[in-house]
Amino acid sequence: MNELRLIDAFLAPFGLSRDARAAGPGVLSGPGDDCAVVRPSAGRKLVLKVDELVEGVHFDWRWFEPEDVGHKALAVALSDLAAAGARPRWFLCALGVRRKADALRTARGMARGMAALARRQGCALVGGNVTRAAGWSVSLTALGEAARPRGRGGARPGDTLVVAGELGRAALGLRLLRAGRRKRSGGERTAVTAHLRPEPLVGAGLAAGGLAAAAVDVSDGLLRDLGHLCAASGCGAEVELSSLPVDPAVRAAGIELALSGGEDYALLFAVRARGSPATAVGRFVAGRGIRLLEHGRPRPLPTRLGWDHLA
Amino acid sequence: MNELRLIDAFLAPFGLSRDARAAGPGVLSGPGDDCAVVRPSAGRKLVLKVDELVEGVHFDWRWFEPEDVGHKALAVALSDLAAAGARPRWFLCALGVRRKADALRTARGMARGMAALARRQGCALVGGNVTRAAGWSVSLTALGEAARPRGRGGARPGDTLVVAGELGRAALGLRLLRAGRRKRSGGERTAVTAHLRPEPLVGAGLAAGGLAAAAVDVSDGLLRDLGHLCAASGCGAEVELSSLPVDPAVRAAGIELALSGGEDYALLFAVRARGSPATAVGRFVAGRGIRLLEHGRPRPLPTRLGWDHLA
Repeated sequence: MNELRLIDAFLAPFGLSRDARAAGPGVLSGPGDDCAVVRPSAGRKLVLKVDELVEGVHFDWRWFEPEDVGHKALAVALSDLAAAGARPRWFLCALGVRRKADALRTARGMARGMAALARRQGCALVGGNVTRAAGWSVSLTALGEAARPRGRGGARPGDTLVVAGELGRAALGLRLLRAGRRKRSGGERTAVTAHLRPEPLVGAGLAAGGLAAAAVDVSDGLLRDLGHLCAASGCGAEVELSSLPVDPAVRAAGIELALSGGEDYALLFAVRARGSPATAVGRFVAGRGIRLLEHGRPRPLPTRLGWDHLA
Repeated sequence: MNELRLIDAFLAPFGLSRDARAAGPGVLSGPGDDCAVVRPSAGRKLVLKVDELVEGVHFDWRWFEPEDVGHKALAVALSDLAAAGARPRWFLCALGVRRKADALRTARGMARGMAALARRQGCALVGGNVTRAAGWSVSLTALGEAARPRGRGGARPGDTLVVAGELGRAALGLRLLRAGRRKRSGGERTAVTAHLRPEPLVGAGLAAGGLAAAAVDVSDGLLRDLGHLCAASGCGAEVELSSLPVDPAVRAAGIELALSGGEDYALLFAVRARGSPATAVGRFVAGRGIRLLEHGRPRPLPTRLGWDHLA
């Protein structure tokens, strides 16, 4: 296996080559040079996120196609940009390559999935790195721009807790994939797709604009990520279970999938104004911690709050 | 092992914590938030580089301390920024963690080495990611700024080829480490340090300013990296072996260490003006390819030109 051939195979789905000088709006020097050079927009802040997917930890070749891995690596980074309300602009991708016969095919497939999403989101690949490694990995750094990026720290007691997207589907999908059954209902197929190909809610993040005072994306489970938002904002939250945007297939499988399942890439917003188009599922309150309600009555928290990346 | 404890251990040497909001000039939101937010300087271009070090490929725990790995991961990315003539500003770090008893100690050590170099270079850690993996890895994305970043593509026939830094030391260091002998001469100890702790020539890269029309850093071997520069510039080069900045210990061990050894992180410049303070070692010529001379007489090229990251 040869490094330059693998780089060529990876760049082709992006319509790029190692000789390419520029590859999109604001790109002055693309993957063909040692460094990427981009021109930031005047008056905008730069929003940065690095994420990594690792073979055997975040994806399993028994059910992930290379296209899925490439898509998901970019999607999870863009999801954080979406929470911040940033417009995706550029990204860099560091690939760990396991040496085997079909490495070229795998790299090309990953690039195909990544390139299709990048094109839809107007986000240009500007740089990368390739190294051999014990297993496949994709480390992806995404750069976005926003005039006033949102963080986790702006929620106040009285704000409405709003969810964009669906909860629990990706966790149900993973459960179904692990069970290995081939015959699936429509809701189950949607859940599997939610795990393999999550869609970053960039449009919702931009549309929320100044309406949302704080936001976080649900990567590690609703309770865990909402907990981070509450801690950063110095307040607590109440969540009404009956209002959660949950598919009937997820509700049937168990509401804890929606509470602590992870990998949903839904967005949680703290909204001060009324009239948001997304789903209000609770409110922020004074104090600390999260309380669950069901039709207004208290419910216990599940014991597992979410995903620990080293557990 | 717990993710948050490991993140805390990693952030401490940077003087950061997960609650830290801002961590340096131009940093609006640091590692404590989901995304990093930075304020680019008006009128500057952004220079981006991702590099990755992998256990067993780029470093061997038999002779690398965690501090060395952390230092080197940042150094190799900053070296590319140096070639571009960019001032390092911010970086993100994605850590692959092998689960074992001393993971916290390893992460803390890596952070120590990285933080010391970051401080010297005025470059702030603004974001990161942690995941478990089959082996340790550090994927590092560095962001710098420059008014007119240099690329590989600006050399012209007649330009002087100038080297900043030393060639072949790191390759000699690696050979000595592999040989495993403990007693070493002064020159040998310098070579070992050059392999474990390369120093990115950021100052030389900035000082070269507009004098240099093109540049590249020597990561994969002089001949290979000079070859990239020549290809991008559409010209060839002549290199005078007797002028190469090479330590006597390297010359004694074999000049091919300086030609194709790699990991030197010296800088090659194409300089049009006279009077550069660095070492002139050849010139760019019309045509293609690289010719070696020794005291003006042609010499054959070595068979191995440099480092293939997948070989």
